Amino acid sequence: MYETHFHKLKIKDLGIDSYGENIIFLKADSGVCISEGFTALTRVIVHKDNKRIIATINVVNSDIIANGEAGLSSEAMNRLVVRNGDEILISHLHPIESLSKVRAKVYGKELNESSYHEIIKDVVAGHYSNIEISAFVSACAGDNMTVNEIISLTKAMIAVGKKIKWPKSLILDKHCVGGLPGNRTTPIVVSIVAAAGLIIPKTSSRAITSPAGTADTMETMAPVNLSIDKIQKVVSEHGGCIAWGGAVMLSPADDLLIAVERALDIDSSGQMVASVLSKKVAAGSTHVVIDIPVGPTAKVRTHEEALKLQYYFKAVSEAIGIYVEVIITEGIQPVGRGIGPSLEAMDVLSVLQNKIDAPADLKERAITLSAALLVLSGKFAAGTELKAAQILLENGSAYEKFKSICIAQGGFKEPGLAKFRFDVIAENNGEVRAIDNRKLARIAKLAGAPKQPCAGVFFNAPVGKKIKKGDLLFSIYAELEAELEYAVKYFNSLNDLIDIR
Amino acid sequence: MYETHFHKLKIKDLGIDSYGENIIFLKADSGVCISEGFTALTRVIVHKDNKRIIATINVVNSDIIANGEAGLSSEAMNRLVVRNGDEILISHLHPIESLSKVRAKVYGKELNESSYHEIIKDVVAGHYSNIEISAFVSACAGDNMTVNEIISLTKAMIAVGKKIKWPKSLILDKHCVGGLPGNRTTPIVVSIVAAAGLIIPKTSSRAITSPAGTADTMETMAPVNLSIDKIQKVVSEHGGCIAWGGAVMLSPADDLLIAVERALDIDSSGQMVASVLSKKVAAGSTHVVIDIPVGPTAKVRTHEEALKLQYYFKAVSEAIGIYVEVIITEGIQPVGRGIGPSLEAMDVLSVLQNKIDAPADLKERAITLSAALLVLSGKFAAGTELKAAQILLENGSAYEKFKSICIAQGGFKEPGLAKFRFDVIAENNGEVRAIDNRKLARIAKLAGAPKQPCAGVFFNAPVGKKIKKGDLLFSIYAELEAELEYAVKYFNSLNDLIDIR
Repeated sequence: MYETHFHKLKIKDLGIDSYGENIIFLKADSGVCISEGFTALTRVIVHKDNKRIIATINVVNSDIIANGEAGLSSEAMNRLVVRNGDEILISHLHPIESLSKVRAKVYGKELNESSYHEIIKDVVAGHYSNIEISAFVSACAGDNMTVNEIISLTKAMIAVGKKIKWPKSLILDKHCVGGLPGNRTTPIVVSIVAAAGLIIPKTSSRAITSPAGTADTMETMAPVNLSIDKIQKVVSEHGGCIAWGGAVMLSPADDLLIAVERALDIDSSGQMVASVLSKKVAAGSTHVVIDIPVGPTAKVRTHEEALKLQYYFKAVSEAIGIYVEVIITEGIQPVGRGIGPSLEAMDVLSVLQNKIDAPADLKERAITLSAALLVLSGKFAAGTELKAAQILLENGSAYEKFKSICIAQGGFKEPGLAKFRFDVIAENNGEVRAIDNRKLARIAKLAGAPKQPCAGVFFNAPVGKKIKKGDLLFSIYAELEAELEYAVKYFNSLNDLIDIR
Repeated sequence: MYETHFHKLKIKDLGIDSYGENIIFLKADSGVCISEGFTALTRVIVHKDNKRIIATINVVNSDIIANGEAGLSSEAMNRLVVRNGDEILISHLHPIESLSKVRAKVYGKELNESSYHEIIKDVVAGHYSNIEISAFVSACAGDNMTVNEIISLTKAMIAVGKKIKWPKSLILDKHCVGGLPGNRTTPIVVSIVAAAGLIIPKTSSRAITSPAGTADTMETMAPVNLSIDKIQKVVSEHGGCIAWGGAVMLSPADDLLIAVERALDIDSSGQMVASVLSKKVAAGSTHVVIDIPVGPTAKVRTHEEALKLQYYFKAVSEAIGIYVEVIITEGIQPVGRGIGPSLEAMDVLSVLQNKIDAPADLKERAITLSAALLVLSGKFAAGTELKAAQILLENGSAYEKFKSICIAQGGFKEPGLAKFRFDVIAENNGEVRAIDNRKLARIAKLAGAPKQPCAGVFFNAPVGKKIKKGDLLFSIYAELEAELEYAVKYFNSLNDLIDIR
């Protein structure tokens, strides 16, 4: 076959992070650019010994790189395993075969399983530019995938990831589709289920767009950055863990797709189902309960949408050979009282410690989900599971289990409260009719959550609560005065956060 | 309304060209990144005095920028009108409203005219990242737009561009949808039509993926980089011009969309029609002939596809108030004998000069298109136009006109031939049955066209020609020996370029 010309260049480490994308920075007047006619957005193959990556050219007109040098984005340097001063070769890129499948999908055609395998393999290898990933994500957005395509995508994502192996055959897991501030049931559910003698190795995510992810919340009480070995050790000793999934790179395809999906703010039922289930398979889970909160400001807004997701989860999990139970729950308001890592951890602890003022909604949700897992395990008869879960929580077994897990993960500590506070007081009497979850989450984020783990919102006005003028509606906590001002300024610009009439 | 926090930074000119996209390079450990939680792919507003642009963050971990500094891509620096050392402010980006319309289109909804106006306005203002443009382009790809949407997109693209004004009310123009190497009718058509006393101010493009654009070909004979003033002067004196459209930025939206479309290698009938017609309106044209060559290796491959494009061109041109005549032509092989700027210019000159060996196909195509314009002008009765065009060409009027136009554009020169040549000789007797236009174009490109204007292919084996062993099939011309080797190596790797049986 026809072999292209190679250009030899020396790596200059520019330290530029292009978020997953391979970028090569070449001097405009370099021999490469002139003789090859390379321009910006052109893609080339970069070689180092036997390794090769594909990178998008950014043309440089300044002296940050010299003639005979090439810069690479950090991700590209890692993928190619090169360092400052290393020699690389550049050659023309022949068309990437799987992109013709992406184009077919863009034109509205249904793709088969091998097409999804080819596409995902190339995405993970870094062969796609973000522009190309964007075309793929857009073509698969909304309801643009058939169930067969979702199954294919899920299988393809599983194929390129790791898989944690367990000595037992029954591995439980839970997942919440998200969108409800403060919905931090995971640490409680893991504790109850592990206390029941079952195995639940939970890997959770950090916040992406929300004020706290489960991993952020858990980190205010114990280390979550565990290796796979450590996860296996903690689980073998205690039956459960609550670790940060990002540390173990279970679904590398998902990370790259989600980055672009988030940048576009595009939802895709198919990609969401594939993302969740591929991670569950990677974690070695066999039986999974999925919580879909539904509400006007939650992620899933209508019951119909929730039913459709339920169908997808069921159909895909059957195809890939795991058991999934979907629970559709009410999602009209924040769960518990805290919004932000530390404030949510306090809610978790008060439920586990059976405090009198523990948030009843968080407790009830945790029991419901735990009970579903107990039934799914086949070790508890249907009808007995709710009572069983409640007992394990209320007799202190779950709390004991939680403390053991925390210690095994590296030590327990109490979550803290941020220095600065601003109280929002009711100006009128009435009843709370509705809450805008998204705006409340925004306030917590502006106050510093999740970067400042002790920042956030303490929420005291659930729907249905009778409010008297002067009552505390919520408090904003921040570590820095500027951030508190920030959040308060935003709050003052709103007039529809809490509907009290 | 709620106002965000501002960060003051000093511009460091990194000279990085990200091809139209606004990128801001911020130090990972800078105050901005830490306090705002900015990460890669996050978008921010960059302010300078009263100007603002939106840019995507690339995080930098090296010393190419210092704390308190920010780098901007070249395009962003131009848009914001800043220089090295200038002070800028950075603030949070509120959601871009029109992106919700892009998402709706991604989800399969039809958009109305005001949505297209909003989107295109934001694209031209640089408010979209390339990832976002990619989502828009993908959602509109293939046949995903209704005729009403194509009309809306065309109007939106017209609204953000310039428009050249003419003192006359009848302004002719021509356009070829492309894909046929050597199809360089434009200089001949302009000359014939202007010689008929009509007005045809032609702006052409440079090659994007082909071995030569009309502007590249024309530039081997006369300057094409004309200002709008200069175009108006040349046309007022001689009735026509052949200028490079890129120099006058007639359709800024088109340039940005096409860059991403090309990177994705995605075709979109709707975007193509909008692109062509918006540029025609911008050029002030009122009557346009559009040439759609159809053939298995041309851009449009089937007659059905050509008919659909014809319908779109008709419907949209009526909606925006210009007259369009579509001519569907045969596109099974290269036109003329030259492929590459200078070699094509030689074909053009030999037709204009009525040389005995002038390529008959190029001449015939030029007469057909010219005749269509003569009829469309209303100044020639139907039935007389072919003869009229032929006479204007054959009596030397068109050549005289061409020379006047060249001189008015800055002076005529003869196109040259490249130094190195490689002849491809027939190994067997037979008749030419088929030619792969795309591979032939590739050979011309590898030989250096269009960067080396005198490089390319001289093609001597049209379909139907009887070939004897030892006959010259084609010659490859290159300015550099290495480029000739390159092209020959590629040719040697092929076995299906010309089908002789």
